[in-house]
Amino acid sequence: MNDVIKLLKSHRSIRKYSDREVDQKMLETLIEAGQSAATSSFIQACTVIKVADPESRKKLCECAAGQEYVVKAPVFLVFCADMQRHQLACEMHKAHMLSGYTEQFLTASLDCALFAQNVLIGAESMGLGGCYIGAIRNRIGEVDKLLGLPEFVYPLFGLCLGYPAQDPEVKPRLPLSIVFKQERYSDDDDTALIREYDETVRRYYKTRTGDIKDNSWSEQISEMLVKESRPHMLSFLQSKGYLLK
Amino acid sequence: MNDVIKLLKSHRSIRKYSDREVDQKMLETLIEAGQSAATSSFIQACTVIKVADPESRKKLCECAAGQEYVVKAPVFLVFCADMQRHQLACEMHKAHMLSGYTEQFLTASLDCALFAQNVLIGAESMGLGGCYIGAIRNRIGEVDKLLGLPEFVYPLFGLCLGYPAQDPEVKPRLPLSIVFKQERYSDDDDTALIREYDETVRRYYKTRTGDIKDNSWSEQISEMLVKESRPHMLSFLQSKGYLLK
Repeated sequence: MNDVIKLLKSHRSIRKYSDREVDQKMLETLIEAGQSAATSSFIQACTVIKVADPESRKKLCECAAGQEYVVKAPVFLVFCADMQRHQLACEMHKAHMLSGYTEQFLTASLDCALFAQNVLIGAESMGLGGCYIGAIRNRIGEVDKLLGLPEFVYPLFGLCLGYPAQDPEVKPRLPLSIVFKQERYSDDDDTALIREYDETVRRYYKTRTGDIKDNSWSEQISEMLVKESRPHMLSFLQSKGYLLK
Repeated sequence: MNDVIKLLKSHRSIRKYSDREVDQKMLETLIEAGQSAATSSFIQACTVIKVADPESRKKLCECAAGQEYVVKAPVFLVFCADMQRHQLACEMHKAHMLSGYTEQFLTASLDCALFAQNVLIGAESMGLGGCYIGAIRNRIGEVDKLLGLPEFVYPLFGLCLGYPAQDPEVKPRLPLSIVFKQERYSDDDDTALIREYDETVRRYYKTRTGDIKDNSWSEQISEMLVKESRPHMLSFLQSKGYLLK
């Protein structure tokens, strides 16, 4: 196993950080590494906004279910899917951009995810740790206003970065044979494999919490999915010019 | 700049491969590296299908605008967003999964992208090269049938992998200040920066094609976006149980 594979396989979310600052030059290197990721048809549809202002951080934290590391992390980045610059490109050539397609929502979002993953891996290679903050979508409209995002730009997720002040265990993942299939999809063995995996996850939580949390993967998932999933998302995204057709 | 940053910044799509095979063990290591990526609320919503069968490859190639590397690459993977296993988890606990939310489409798709980017970076660290194939979405319904994907599973993109038999230049990206903003969104300077970047891209294409391709970024984007973007995507995804609300 080479060092990069080791780095990738040692990922865990870091939510506590030392006071050590992350300088802007280092951050720029990471953003450039993000830009180097593949981009669908060269659209380059990701914009990153660094939020340092304490008042803005507090507001973002409130939007993100009060997760305190949104305030405390040395660096907080918001990844935005951005087709505003494509609108500019079209205007430069007096072309009329056809917008609203689900496909555009997908490619712009994927571009951001590939970009962000490069940033996080790059950060981890430099000794930083981080944690994606999907919870900014809890109150995405407020995040959108706070950042002053125009039409065709929406906030996808946040990313906390900093030097780790904790060393959590790597969380066990689903068995390989569930997620890696050959030639065609089959889920014949999946229920049995999930049952097995459930015990692994239960042990992980018990160890980590000193027997307080006693929960399996399938329990956790089933408890989560009987609830609504951010039902405001569709109308918000449509208000930004996406998912209209 | 450390080796990981160097690796990330040296990415370019590889579309020509030597005959050297990629063994299954190596591939499994890469898939495990993919699984190690962050996953939204621990949903682990990515399934990878390896397609080796020559007839299936030929069919996938036809679906993907005839890009011949889909047939010729030593490895072809299809990344699928998968909430079928969450349906199984809910059934195990007699819970009724609430589905159809745009948010679920987004989180499942993002999970896949983070996973895939780990696979590609891992592959590149082992001397392989690769290329994402978004064009399988040109005829996504046929790809879906070929792979036998059940409800709540849809193919997002393909990934060709193999040992490189070409050494293309790294493609220049947008100026850092367009994609990296501070505190709030502003695009005041973006048109000027795009004009500057346009010349960089024009030079890149001219050098690469021996003066045949004379195209700027904004030209390329504006030519692309006056056309429809896979208008079948919304109804296809809805047929799979996504984007219904």
